[in-house]
Amino acid sequence: MRPEELDRTDPEGAIAAAAARVSNWGRWGEDDVLGTMNFLDDETRRAAAGLVRTGRSFSLSQSFDMDGPQRGWRRRTNPVHTMLDTGTDAVAGIQGFPHGLGGADDVIAMPLQCSTQWDGLGHIFDHGHAWNGRPADRVVTSEGDRITGIETAADVICGRGVLLDVGRVIGESGELPDGFAITEAHLAQTVAAQGSTSEIRRGDIVVVRTGQLSRARRDGWGEYAGGPAPGLSFTTADWLHDTEIAAIATDTWGFEVRPNEFDVAFQPLHQVAIPNIGLFIGEMWDPDALAAACHDDGHYDFFLTAAPIRITGAVGSPVNPVAVR
Amino acid sequence: MRPEELDRTDPEGAIAAAAARVSNWGRWGEDDVLGTMNFLDDETRRAAAGLVRTGRSFSLSQSFDMDGPQRGWRRRTNPVHTMLDTGTDAVAGIQGFPHGLGGADDVIAMPLQCSTQWDGLGHIFDHGHAWNGRPADRVVTSEGDRITGIETAADVICGRGVLLDVGRVIGESGELPDGFAITEAHLAQTVAAQGSTSEIRRGDIVVVRTGQLSRARRDGWGEYAGGPAPGLSFTTADWLHDTEIAAIATDTWGFEVRPNEFDVAFQPLHQVAIPNIGLFIGEMWDPDALAAACHDDGHYDFFLTAAPIRITGAVGSPVNPVAVR
Amino acid sequence: MRPEELDRTDPEGAIAAAAARVSNWGRWGEDDVLGTMNFLDDETRRAAAGLVRTGRSFSLSQSFDMDGPQRGWRRRTNPVHTMLDTGTDAVAGIQGFPHGLGGADDVIAMPLQCSTQWDGLGHIFDHGHAWNGRPADRVVTSEGDRITGIETAADVICGRGVLLDVGRVIGESGELPDGFAITEAHLAQTVAAQGSTSEIRRGDIVVVRTGQLSRARRDGWGEYAGGPAPGLSFTTADWLHDTEIAAIATDTWGFEVRPNEFDVAFQPLHQVAIPNIGLFIGEMWDPDALAAACHDDGHYDFFLTAAPIRITGAVGSPVNPVAVR
Amino acid sequence: MRPEELDRTDPEGAIAAAAARVSNWGRWGEDDVLGTMNFLDDETRRAAAGLVRTGRSFSLSQSFDMDGPQRGWRRRTNPVHTMLDTGTDAVAGIQGFPHGLGGADDVIAMPLQCSTQWDGLGHIFDHGHAWNGRPADRVVTSEGDRITGIETAADVICGRGVLLDVGRVIGESGELPDGFAITEAHLAQTVAAQGSTSEIRRGDIVVVRTGQLSRARRDGWGEYAGGPAPGLSFTTADWLHDTEIAAIATDTWGFEVRPNEFDVAFQPLHQVAIPNIGLFIGEMWDPDALAAACHDDGHYDFFLTAAPIRITGAVGSPVNPVAVR
Repeated sequence: MRPEELDRTDPEGAIAAAAARVSNWGRWGEDDVLGTMNFLDDETRRAAAGLVRTGRSFSLSQSFDMDGPQRGWRRRTNPVHTMLDTGTDAVAGIQGFPHGLGGADDVIAMPLQCSTQWDGLGHIFDHGHAWNGRPADRVVTSEGDRITGIETAADVICGRGVLLDVGRVIGESGELPDGFAITEAHLAQTVAAQGSTSEIRRGDIVVVRTGQLSRARRDGWGEYAGGPAPGLSFTTADWLHDTEIAAIATDTWGFEVRPNEFDVAFQPLHQVAIPNIGLFIGEMWDPDALAAACHDDGHYDFFLTAAPIRITGAVGSPVNPVAVR
Repeated sequence: MRPEELDRTDPEGAIAAAAARVSNWGRWGEDDVLGTMNFLDDETRRAAAGLVRTGRSFSLSQSFDMDGPQRGWRRRTNPVHTMLDTGTDAVAGIQGFPHGLGGADDVIAMPLQCSTQWDGLGHIFDHGHAWNGRPADRVVTSEGDRITGIETAADVICGRGVLLDVGRVIGESGELPDGFAITEAHLAQTVAAQGSTSEIRRGDIVVVRTGQLSRARRDGWGEYAGGPAPGLSFTTADWLHDTEIAAIATDTWGFEVRPNEFDVAFQPLHQVAIPNIGLFIGEMWDPDALAAACHDDGHYDFFLTAAPIRITGAVGSPVNPVAVR
Repeated sequence: MRPEELDRTDPEGAIAAAAARVSNWGRWGEDDVLGTMNFLDDETRRAAAGLVRTGRSFSLSQSFDMDGPQRGWRRRTNPVHTMLDTGTDAVAGIQGFPHGLGGADDVIAMPLQCSTQWDGLGHIFDHGHAWNGRPADRVVTSEGDRITGIETAADVICGRGVLLDVGRVIGESGELPDGFAITEAHLAQTVAAQGSTSEIRRGDIVVVRTGQLSRARRDGWGEYAGGPAPGLSFTTADWLHDTEIAAIATDTWGFEVRPNEFDVAFQPLHQVAIPNIGLFIGEMWDPDALAAACHDDGHYDFFLTAAPIRITGAVGSPVNPVAVR
Repeated sequence: MRPEELDRTDPEGAIAAAAARVSNWGRWGEDDVLGTMNFLDDETRRAAAGLVRTGRSFSLSQSFDMDGPQRGWRRRTNPVHTMLDTGTDAVAGIQGFPHGLGGADDVIAMPLQCSTQWDGLGHIFDHGHAWNGRPADRVVTSEGDRITGIETAADVICGRGVLLDVGRVIGESGELPDGFAITEAHLAQTVAAQGSTSEIRRGDIVVVRTGQLSRARRDGWGEYAGGPAPGLSFTTADWLHDTEIAAIATDTWGFEVRPNEFDVAFQPLHQVAIPNIGLFIGEMWDPDALAAACHDDGHYDFFLTAAPIRITGAVGSPVNPVAVR
């Protein structure tokens, strides 16, 4: 779909049309819980191991702490990490352990999508339907996602990662401005500029760098999260589907461009991608150090493991994606 | 050290002697925060990628849910996962999103060591000293671990994993009994039985399967966690040091044998291993599916990524370790 | 209703019949959010202040800590209280405050019904209907109770309290056995034994002591909460309605007798009392010290303030009820 | 102390001098845990019950929800309230209860001082000393306040409340401007203007209305909490001591004037009042509805119950203070 074809006044129509074009419902059977992770098979993973050339590894995770981007929207706070036991206590001699042992221990309370994360397949619904056409109220209740909980993807998310540094190729000083909608043309232009190692293949985990995180790191989060940001255009829905990628992640809060490209809308590309394509979306990743290394030697693909925490029934999960190249 | 040399009445003396033998303080400079992770270098990691033969991946994580082993000891509960938004709400039409979008979102409150985890270097102290000789009260306060927080290891924990299925080699029906202390001799016997792929090398991440998890899965947790379990003998301290492994993990709550091997003691091997050796210890991992595959084809090494969540200042972290073989 | 009339095989029929007899739907208008708290008016409260004779005050709250009765049923844990700042940190000099100031601060994560509590009117539904006949899915969503949230009762819950020490009057050594169903006859017998100060009047807050807490305090909680306990018989539904009391509380986890009085049932009296009568129910109160004082001087009524924490949309709330007599 | 005597450059000297004048250490024995609550005896409480004239009750609590004033300072967030079970789930028929019963249940994660609260005696230290001269590191560790935890005051905090509506008497349109320091003279002027019912007596719980909450309610919280606000002047330390009040509360985040009255300082009056006087301080109360009623009939004293939640070891507690008049 070309951006100029978007009717800003009709998100519902555009979503319905896109969903009709890209739906993968039933593609992997009616019991499927993995969606596009089905593209990431053992052979793909085996081949991806061959991309490790130097053995250097990069975490693509942002920090989990009170300095994060959350501002309380829909009860999403930054993580609150507190200690059950501390070194100061140990030194004060109050812990009661024998033979000079001291300990520190901790707890956390956090939204599962407060920092670097995967959206699970139960995160977004389209007109009451979850991935594979299931009624949303049969899938996600107060007890969590009873069918497509993130634990179902605990084993599979490692394979070929490809960085598309759109910020560097299209932006200025490596950054796209807020509100910039990345189209299929921009993605193609990025692949072309980066060279053959960034060619997109079936089963890939694509990491899109917009540069917005670099800017936030420099200027502060302000009233983010949820505010203006560069991101994928709604019109990339077909690309997301046709490329048969396993997953895609960005360095922004919301993956798609904010504000969205309709007059009144909220994350319309999510509504197509998650319940209809069955696509795994990563948000708030940190590709900056990896991007520098890719730029240095011109290799943009790598072995990527991005294993969600095995929280039963979760519709999202913190993740520390590690790229090895 | 041989098990028969242990004086059950003097844990403090045994710990001091072992610490003197195995201390790595200063080995990587006074500013070091990585301990034995220094053994896991790029070359080790590059070579490990070559272990991927079929591309099949295995999560070594237990579940994070209310069915876990915690019983409230020192305020360690099982994780409490709750929903901010659900599919039932979406279908009820109360979410207020436009164009038919519905969403589910969730939060979690949990001890960082409630299920599959890494102990960070700030987790245990020896007579008020943390890793590398630092005063514990300078390292871990109520604000968390200000020096060796788990975020310092966010990039590095991927490389060669080796499974030592002691439960299968030494135990009955694949399980060691509770209270069984795994000695250096047992480890050697396991390596010998499994063959050359399980030879231990510098920088390895060793996964010890005791079989206790298989038993708990069958019989329930009971009043675990913290109760009797098989685990490493205190006398393996030298082996842990001399092998120059990067990390070691077990399928039990506490890594070392429980009850401990002294008349009055609490986790004495931790006191040697974490602050003195600088060793990363994994607990409550689930090696069962991987072990079956290793047994099937006789290959016990694999590429392992076990990236902690990047929680600033954490002394431990949930992890979903993924083995690819 | 007499206990012998209960058909153990037909809880649904019994509930429907009781609901038909005792329903207060519409009694205070269709917008009502206070249910039986409407009985507790200013004049009742004014008169209750006259019950203060010595000025001695009694907290009727159990503790909020990890030693509580919860065992994880439906994700109800005991409260997890952790520190953000401590005295050990202050003394270690790491807090960064000027002029010698040090501080301690704390957080809590807890089910709202983990210890001494009020059930709000949104806590229980009868065949999809909440208090006053509202559809349950219009009342309580993931955002909480949007109509009868506990905050609506923030001002009103103080007035005349009356202790009915059924444990002392009917039980042995002050305790009713687990599984003992307190009937209307037992309540009448208790009033008669205690004398005129325990006569029940419109707008009263009735505190029923079963003695089970005294037993738990002595013997430990065991696998409680939710297990066998003395409590109100299903057959007291009419009494609860006809007395026009504002609220009733017990010293047990579940208010009504456990196991319930039907072959297959779960808290059937709740299903009548909360959505149909609109009754406020308190659970896990601690009346023991108050009961001793009442017994000493024979006065069983007092001024009681039991103000829920003003948590917007909560269907229950921790409370520290304070009786002054 | 007169405000003009304050040396803005020497908070530490001013604090030491004030502490020397007002210290109550040892006044109630070395084991004391109640501080100024010792002034609130049964006779005081008995007399206070006589203040109830109409029986109308007023909650002085602000809301506990995500719209609160917290902005993450020192990990203080607004409360996160989530549901374990909902009405939408009940109606969707997924709860598994028998006989048509449905339920809703909830949890909360919150700082104990996120909204209407008491500061416990373990909240603030003066040069490493807690209330009554105890070493702070013997009192408050990661396990909480082991001596003066808020549970020690669970029974006592009800008695005579007096509203000093300084905002109305001294301010414009009922509001003091941010940064306004309320001095002893302002308090005296308020008492004089309000008349004899606001005379301060031993054992009183004084509620000071600055009007800042009214302003925040109208204009929003902005970047509060912790920002500029009216409040008690440091120079009221002697008044707080000499009046022998049991407690004092304000409608602001921090009780004392913000910014504080020294060039570099943080809550210096707390440092005098809590550890030295042993005074209970309430913060973020909502006196507005009560103030209107007091103004209407000229009666400024009332029966006040402000019972903290009985959280073992807490250094602060949410509270729903209820005034009956």
